[in-house]
Amino acid sequence: MTMRRTDLALEARELWQESAGETTKLPGVEARDGEREGLPVTTVDILDQEGEKALGKPKGRYVTLTLEGLASREGDIFARSIQALAAELSLLLKDIPPQGLVLVAGLGNRAITPDAIGPKVHNYTLVTRHLVRQMPETFGAFRPVASLAAEVMGTTGVESGELIQSLCEKICPHCVIAVDALASRSLHRLCRTVQLTDTGITPGSGVGNHRMGLDRKSLGVPVIAIGVPTVVDAATLAADLMGVEELPDLGEGRDLLVTPKDIDSQVGDLSKIIGYAINLALQPGLTIEELELLLS
Amino acid sequence: MTMRRTDLALEARELWQESAGETTKLPGVEARDGEREGLPVTTVDILDQEGEKALGKPKGRYVTLTLEGLASREGDIFARSIQALAAELSLLLKDIPPQGLVLVAGLGNRAITPDAIGPKVHNYTLVTRHLVRQMPETFGAFRPVASLAAEVMGTTGVESGELIQSLCEKICPHCVIAVDALASRSLHRLCRTVQLTDTGITPGSGVGNHRMGLDRKSLGVPVIAIGVPTVVDAATLAADLMGVEELPDLGEGRDLLVTPKDIDSQVGDLSKIIGYAINLALQPGLTIEELELLLS
Amino acid sequence: MTMRRTDLALEARELWQESAGETTKLPGVEARDGEREGLPVTTVDILDQEGEKALGKPKGRYVTLTLEGLASREGDIFARSIQALAAELSLLLKDIPPQGLVLVAGLGNRAITPDAIGPKVHNYTLVTRHLVRQMPETFGAFRPVASLAAEVMGTTGVESGELIQSLCEKICPHCVIAVDALASRSLHRLCRTVQLTDTGITPGSGVGNHRMGLDRKSLGVPVIAIGVPTVVDAATLAADLMGVEELPDLGEGRDLLVTPKDIDSQVGDLSKIIGYAINLALQPGLTIEELELLLS
Amino acid sequence: MTMRRTDLALEARELWQESAGETTKLPGVEARDGEREGLPVTTVDILDQEGEKALGKPKGRYVTLTLEGLASREGDIFARSIQALAAELSLLLKDIPPQGLVLVAGLGNRAITPDAIGPKVHNYTLVTRHLVRQMPETFGAFRPVASLAAEVMGTTGVESGELIQSLCEKICPHCVIAVDALASRSLHRLCRTVQLTDTGITPGSGVGNHRMGLDRKSLGVPVIAIGVPTVVDAATLAADLMGVEELPDLGEGRDLLVTPKDIDSQVGDLSKIIGYAINLALQPGLTIEELELLLS
Repeated sequence: MTMRRTDLALEARELWQESAGETTKLPGVEARDGEREGLPVTTVDILDQEGEKALGKPKGRYVTLTLEGLASREGDIFARSIQALAAELSLLLKDIPPQGLVLVAGLGNRAITPDAIGPKVHNYTLVTRHLVRQMPETFGAFRPVASLAAEVMGTTGVESGELIQSLCEKICPHCVIAVDALASRSLHRLCRTVQLTDTGITPGSGVGNHRMGLDRKSLGVPVIAIGVPTVVDAATLAADLMGVEELPDLGEGRDLLVTPKDIDSQVGDLSKIIGYAINLALQPGLTIEELELLLS
Repeated sequence: MTMRRTDLALEARELWQESAGETTKLPGVEARDGEREGLPVTTVDILDQEGEKALGKPKGRYVTLTLEGLASREGDIFARSIQALAAELSLLLKDIPPQGLVLVAGLGNRAITPDAIGPKVHNYTLVTRHLVRQMPETFGAFRPVASLAAEVMGTTGVESGELIQSLCEKICPHCVIAVDALASRSLHRLCRTVQLTDTGITPGSGVGNHRMGLDRKSLGVPVIAIGVPTVVDAATLAADLMGVEELPDLGEGRDLLVTPKDIDSQVGDLSKIIGYAINLALQPGLTIEELELLLS
Repeated sequence: MTMRRTDLALEARELWQESAGETTKLPGVEARDGEREGLPVTTVDILDQEGEKALGKPKGRYVTLTLEGLASREGDIFARSIQALAAELSLLLKDIPPQGLVLVAGLGNRAITPDAIGPKVHNYTLVTRHLVRQMPETFGAFRPVASLAAEVMGTTGVESGELIQSLCEKICPHCVIAVDALASRSLHRLCRTVQLTDTGITPGSGVGNHRMGLDRKSLGVPVIAIGVPTVVDAATLAADLMGVEELPDLGEGRDLLVTPKDIDSQVGDLSKIIGYAINLALQPGLTIEELELLLS
Repeated sequence: MTMRRTDLALEARELWQESAGETTKLPGVEARDGEREGLPVTTVDILDQEGEKALGKPKGRYVTLTLEGLASREGDIFARSIQALAAELSLLLKDIPPQGLVLVAGLGNRAITPDAIGPKVHNYTLVTRHLVRQMPETFGAFRPVASLAAEVMGTTGVESGELIQSLCEKICPHCVIAVDALASRSLHRLCRTVQLTDTGITPGSGVGNHRMGLDRKSLGVPVIAIGVPTVVDAATLAADLMGVEELPDLGEGRDLLVTPKDIDSQVGDLSKIIGYAINLALQPGLTIEELELLLS
């Protein structure tokens, strides 16, 4: 049996609960709901091997932020989304020294719209490593930041993980932030949810199915992963709709995805929000207005 | 009840047959299957008002070509697809004088991948009107061709139909060829089928839902429409999977589409095939190799 | 003798003065210098046929704004440039009724960076004609605006002037604003100067050498042209440097242009400034912040 | 005094000869003219320190191919250019084992048209390293090839040389082919000349002025550089026209470049020619037609 696919710890927990029954207590997992800038935040902690096995995800923290109101572009939703995400990211970064080099890695395929979140966040990242080194008198107050859009294997012949690993060995960052598009099980989470985790990226997850994992084990430093569900696998959706466990083959062997009609503009908005939030978390002295000027 | 959505006459006929039962004869419609360059061709003729009513489409000819093997890029499938499409298009163009001006209009939104077929075909169209006028001694043997990518209303404030209508009044073509992305009901037809029809474009069809129709009535000249299904409406798919008639709301009011994962490259391939086929049908003296050189 | 090429009335006046001598008074022309938002503004009025002959440009007003400090992105230079340009444009629009439809036409070739100003300004134009018509209760306070990026003849077979003319006949605007890239004679004006004129566009001017003029005579309504010099013709520069009148052939028949190294980002900045200024002049009730939200 | 700038050994030799007088013999340098596929080929060998000093370039071979007739797209000029370049490149690759991994590195800034040759050649490179490793039974006959478009420091915070160096340490290629845009002194060589050299890339050369050199010393393996002059520095041109040695400041501190008007399409053509030539030299069993199919 092929599993119905989700990259969100939140949904893995829901699926477990559905199959175990509402009253059974999920072992080795703690979860709590909160709010940040008026937006719902759910934190799931996988505490031990039992929790890992139940949810099929490694031990660590998974924070999910819901960007309510983004689609309708209500009032200050952009600014609030950026601030909320920056605040949650700052918590995950709290053990990284303030002047420690951070590498932001954008994963995914720029040529496939729902997989382009990573490369587009790279475009919005304020890189400072070269400035801090070359003009310390002017840029000494900035944290050094490098960034890379790891192209996909079909255009480089090299796994994106290999490239990031080799760059890490060269420039020795204190932390890697990896950004990627995710698959969700639920249509209503599509392009409305951001997951942050301190466990890095598990092999084979994401829209583009990277082979190699990106985590403390493979890179030697803490890896924070930021992911957004941009697609629902059509077969997963079909299985859900039909109430069956096994995934049907809908497309004669072709991969079929469900996306919002305006996926191009939604991927653009989300990339900007995530990129700005990363910049604010890494350079706490800057404001959104200053970023607009520096990045335009 | 909202109708399950299809822009293909072929599928409208299947839907009618399903609901009427296999043995009932569809009135006012004739259909036959054939082959061109080894590819399956189905021709549906809607003959009268009874046929119009049964299929919900205007009287005329609907030719559907199936591009088998395109996904796997087998051998000469590109060349055969172009030749087959050019041959079918030539039949629909047989009453247009060989030196009569033709306007190729690419409909749809360039910024939304599955809706970008029209604008991309415009990029592949060999335009000659200005050359035939300015240098008749060199280009006199060419048919004059003009082309337009009618942008969407949200970026112009003008309906694409209004723009094409105004240009028709100015340059007086003998025929308009309108290219558009379509919605299909069936996943296996996605990006594998091309429909040609001499009835033009019906109001409200296509992925982008153009308001105004483009047909002999609105433009004053014959209009041939070329369409490719690039999306299945997710609600239509869901209704089919669940075996219900009424469309469910899957996305809390959002439009959700099902597309192949590699929609970007498939839209690219299909646009090239259609563009080249139009060029061959309009300039029968050219070969594919000569087009490669002229358009590169 | 081939003339050294300039599209700026300001430079035509300088050239006349140079060849006539400093003390000779230019007949039929009045000029004055001023300031707007701290930026230098020069207004040249060509008053009669004598002035037309002397400067080789039609009778009318030519306003030149110098965007000092844009290259260094100093402080509020973006906002001041937009406000200054909007104010000067409003003066030229003063006889157009506040609710009269305006058509913004972006001229030039999107595929050639220094010629892409027009198409890019079109992207920044807030179009409202369809909204005012469809939802008058919500958008009734807006002026109706339509916009078109008139593609070049090589991709349409139709002159951009013909297309704009045909659309004008269809939608009957009260005024056309035409935006185009210009050639300058002076390197220090490159990408730093904006010329506004109420005379429209003269045949054969601009970077892309449009054949047909766009003016009150050809379109039947007032035409305001906004132009930015983005190139200096290399042969004109060479003639200036060598102090000769006749243009040398530098490139064995090829057109060679001088542009700033960062022309891509400068064309981007200028297009945004011009687009926003047009929006503010046409919708005086909006602020720059509101435009950011509406156009993002 | 600032030197008039050229990255071509051919031009450095001309400049030396001009200043030394026609009859003086250039020491430590050998040059010969030949032909390949009907196109002129000049080979300059810098033999020793005396030659290095005279031409300001490191010891090694510099092959210059002139793509006559490319601008007019005469007959088979595309195919002949590809074949000639592939043949010259094969000679420089003759000591690399036929199954040895080669890394193709595209240098330059994708966002600045005349500097985009390197990234665009990367797009045309047939990468096979992952296929040879994953499916040796199918792809065993191919040489493993990896490719990278090293983004510029302003978008990554990392020097492109550092990134290539780190990847070389990871994947251990037998040879690196580095592609870059060059500056020329002569307008008639612009976009018509390709230089190949076995000396790699010297620090500070190229349109984008990379800081770090890419050569056997920095990368530990042979580095073949392929360069195309796409710009003439406007100040160098001015100095030449005015017959002076010192470079004038034309642009109030701005960098000004001279490029052909159709630089966008010329950079596209040249990138395809170089990319295809690299593919043919690295995979001698393939034809141009097979490459078209594999890369489309």
